[in-house]
Amino acid sequence: MTDLPPESLVGKTIAVLGGTGPQGRGLARRFAAAGLAVVIGSRDPQRAAGTATELAMATGGSVSGTDNAAAAAAGDIVVVAVPWEGHADLLQGLATSLAGKVVVDCVNPLGFDKQGAYALAIEEGSAAQQAQALLPESVVVGAFHNVSAVKLDDPETASVDTDVLVVADVREAGDLVRDLAGCIPGVRGVYGGRLRNAHQIEALTANLISVNRRYKAHAGIRITDI
Amino acid sequence: MTDLPPESLVGKTIAVLGGTGPQGRGLARRFAAAGLAVVIGSRDPQRAAGTATELAMATGGSVSGTDNAAAAAAGDIVVVAVPWEGHADLLQGLATSLAGKVVVDCVNPLGFDKQGAYALAIEEGSAAQQAQALLPESVVVGAFHNVSAVKLDDPETASVDTDVLVVADVREAGDLVRDLAGCIPGVRGVYGGRLRNAHQIEALTANLISVNRRYKAHAGIRITDI
Repeated sequence: MTDLPPESLVGKTIAVLGGTGPQGRGLARRFAAAGLAVVIGSRDPQRAAGTATELAMATGGSVSGTDNAAAAAAGDIVVVAVPWEGHADLLQGLATSLAGKVVVDCVNPLGFDKQGAYALAIEEGSAAQQAQALLPESVVVGAFHNVSAVKLDDPETASVDTDVLVVADVREAGDLVRDLAGCIPGVRGVYGGRLRNAHQIEALTANLISVNRRYKAHAGIRITDI
Repeated sequence: MTDLPPESLVGKTIAVLGGTGPQGRGLARRFAAAGLAVVIGSRDPQRAAGTATELAMATGGSVSGTDNAAAAAAGDIVVVAVPWEGHADLLQGLATSLAGKVVVDCVNPLGFDKQGAYALAIEEGSAAQQAQALLPESVVVGAFHNVSAVKLDDPETASVDTDVLVVADVREAGDLVRDLAGCIPGVRGVYGGRLRNAHQIEALTANLISVNRRYKAHAGIRITDI
């Protein structure tokens, strides 16, 4: 643990649904390392408990693991890092336990074929907008789409060289998630517009996958002039 | 004029269609300053000639102005920087004179309302893919979408702090356009995937407009870890 978390996050529990997947696990590691209480959710609560134990030992932080529904209920801020395929089904069942909470969607709806990754067409416009449609009593914020899972989950990476674009329709919720992003060393949370402009940030991950292949990198993005 | 242009661009004439608009004018300025021969195209050839004279004086480079059709015919590499509204109509009439050439599409199909900018839905997927559909005998490359027109056209801005994501289906054409981007001081041309992933780069400009409003900036993007 290094610095204390910002005031807006003091005493808040961060739930990470899909927290045993690469992105979710990497975020959970960084949040725990920042001194935040983390609850990992997974379809498989035993796997979640195993990951939680590992991350607690690695970070010295407070991490527990359970199923996705219990994690959703336990979190003050709930990060959704599940595969796109299970996104709608999972959120449909959680509308009540997520009511009144800030839900952070970091899901990238991508397809893959021989030519690499490509963006899927989403009826609601984006994964974040789908989440907001399914969770009318939550405030959905889009973030953490373009951060390398490898870098997040690598204890040797002291500082993650990327900005996190945060899309939000409610300013306070966006600012809270910007603070959350800022808990990761090296990362800035940058306001990137309203939820209706989430699609291209999710889809940009397909381009970053192409960058990673061509340049043998774990690319991220920085916003310049700010 | 500073450094010589890279070998791939020696002797090449760069046409900029829509070269009197902010983005086109800024690109024409930078290409001329890099020692490339530039032909500015515009619906209004007199306006093109006026801009050309200004930029030639400002840069000490070779810049001429004419109508869009004559510029398209004159260019070895043809940059399309027209407003989205006129994109399809213009390109439809130029298929013959653009045959066999590299066409660089930098058009961002955006709508604007009280809440700011948003991405338009494009039947072909993106402006770049529309261009490729209308120009079957050209090689269309997407680039220069996220570069601040203000910074490009500002003679006081010695170095433009941004990367240019280049999307291309033909590697040699993509590499050529990366070289073209690299002629602008401060800019790196970065391969960003295939043409089918152009949409999100075009649309990301809506997010950067939101960044500019919130942070009073002229934002660009950098790709990290490469």
